[in-house]
Amino acid sequence: MPARPIHLHIENALRKPSIYHITPERWEAACARHRALARRLRVTIGWDGDTPDEALRTAEMIIGVPAPRDHLSARAPALRWMHATSAGIDGLLPLDWLPRGVAFTNNRGAHGVKAGQFMRMAFTMLHTRMPQIIANQLARHWEQLFSSSLAGRTALIVGLGDLGEAAARAAKQLGLEVIGVRRTARKSRYADAVHPYFRLDRLLPKADFVVLAVPLTPETHNLLSRERLALMKSTAGVINISRAAVADYAALTEKLQRGELAGAILDVVDPEPLPAASPLWDVPNLIITPHISCDDGEHYVDISLDLWFENLARFLQNKPLRQRVDPRRGY
Amino acid sequence: MPARPIHLHIENALRKPSIYHITPERWEAACARHRALARRLRVTIGWDGDTPDEALRTAEMIIGVPAPRDHLSARAPALRWMHATSAGIDGLLPLDWLPRGVAFTNNRGAHGVKAGQFMRMAFTMLHTRMPQIIANQLARHWEQLFSSSLAGRTALIVGLGDLGEAAARAAKQLGLEVIGVRRTARKSRYADAVHPYFRLDRLLPKADFVVLAVPLTPETHNLLSRERLALMKSTAGVINISRAAVADYAALTEKLQRGELAGAILDVVDPEPLPAASPLWDVPNLIITPHISCDDGEHYVDISLDLWFENLARFLQNKPLRQRVDPRRGY
Repeated sequence: MPARPIHLHIENALRKPSIYHITPERWEAACARHRALARRLRVTIGWDGDTPDEALRTAEMIIGVPAPRDHLSARAPALRWMHATSAGIDGLLPLDWLPRGVAFTNNRGAHGVKAGQFMRMAFTMLHTRMPQIIANQLARHWEQLFSSSLAGRTALIVGLGDLGEAAARAAKQLGLEVIGVRRTARKSRYADAVHPYFRLDRLLPKADFVVLAVPLTPETHNLLSRERLALMKSTAGVINISRAAVADYAALTEKLQRGELAGAILDVVDPEPLPAASPLWDVPNLIITPHISCDDGEHYVDISLDLWFENLARFLQNKPLRQRVDPRRGY
Repeated sequence: MPARPIHLHIENALRKPSIYHITPERWEAACARHRALARRLRVTIGWDGDTPDEALRTAEMIIGVPAPRDHLSARAPALRWMHATSAGIDGLLPLDWLPRGVAFTNNRGAHGVKAGQFMRMAFTMLHTRMPQIIANQLARHWEQLFSSSLAGRTALIVGLGDLGEAAARAAKQLGLEVIGVRRTARKSRYADAVHPYFRLDRLLPKADFVVLAVPLTPETHNLLSRERLALMKSTAGVINISRAAVADYAALTEKLQRGELAGAILDVVDPEPLPAASPLWDVPNLIITPHISCDDGEHYVDISLDLWFENLARFLQNKPLRQRVDPRRGY
């Protein structure tokens, strides 16, 4: 006799770009790649909280976080596993709304290929002086700004999770010396050396590139502060693929305006969308990319669901889930 | 008894950027890397033709091409080998000024590392829609233009010399399918397939990227013509690291203005420096880089002289020189 089907509810947010929507078509395609596992499931798909509470009542798993999140233990009493479709869950902190005993996973692991591609581009654009070359083009000004090879420059990667490891790998591929910084000094596959956060002040003066790839938590808020920015070389560049609040953008702006930094590429700003009136848009040698660095524009849902199905196999075998969020750390 | 020293004359052009100047310091540094060979030479260094004809009279080798070039066989009767410090020698064609029996080499081989780095950046910038993202930033407009991974896209590399091979290698590193085009169908190390020029019309509709890396000769002039541009996908991009005259920039401009191409990165324009009044500066989705794609801004002379010394060893052993220009082909 087959086991009783497990109710999975998928909750989509229409306000998010369509690349993130788990449509019935994308879900079916994932099921076709994971037939045996998919057969164990009964699935409901909701959009922007249009799911009646009745559907939530029997859900044992949810992909996406329903809004509102209050009283979830009463509304979804069967819930055992909830999965966020993004890697950053800073918008959901603190996790006091998460019912006790419910496993919470995020989407780390889905961003490495795209993030690595973006980081190789970003390192090379800064090194090749593209911010200045683009400004010269706007000014109709021809100036041969030459650059050497990237090899031998030093990248300081702050945060060595999914994105940080992708950045470190990209840096190694370009021949850079890679220094990693994370909470602990635990080793990394691609960093030549790893230090804990409290060493940052000593490491910043060595960096030709500083990459911000940390999750945003109370601990990492304003990590690249005005005081720390002041420790950087004037020839160095900053790349942020994490969250705006991990750096002091006002101080960064002033440094760029004074020519005390070579350039910056910011994939994250606050708020997003960035309003037309924001002073960030025309800071010299600053390139703003609209939060597109790490999410595959065609296959984000496919990649994410493949990771989720791998975790489902572990769930069904009572193995510990991967990508699990630690509620105390907040990522 | 030591062999009589060979007179090498080095001719610099002050109008060229300083990264190209073979200064006494750079020459001495190269000699220190090639001591035994350097000991065979007697060297004079000239700037902008300030060398008296007396110096040329005994020169058996010249690095750089003296201006004026007329009557060289009378002015430099001992000359056996002349070396151009650039890879492109289209500005010196036709080679009717070259005395008979004088070997003429160019600087191919000195550009691969930098060209590969630039090409990886250029492919990724076009794929990531950076031209549009930069335009949006100027317009203070937030729009999440997502992109997928590069892998599986098709690059059509036109010309498979030093630069084309570097472009093909870069494309393979990014997971692209690489189709090469050259005079013959001779194989390439990095291209998945190689075709002769006359197949271009059939290949252009397949390309997501068209890279121009041919030497400029009468045969390649206007190779990417208006008619051929019309064969490209509207989602494709063009990258030119060769010479402006190999493509029809007026037709390219019109296609970009009509949105019939995704973007272009042009490292070469005509004339250079590009005058402020040129209509090229503000063509939509066009990025102009100021002829900086392939020349290392710190080590161009070092790299070039190392190649020259390798050739000097061959010269002294009466072996055929590498990087030799074929006067009939013009490169």
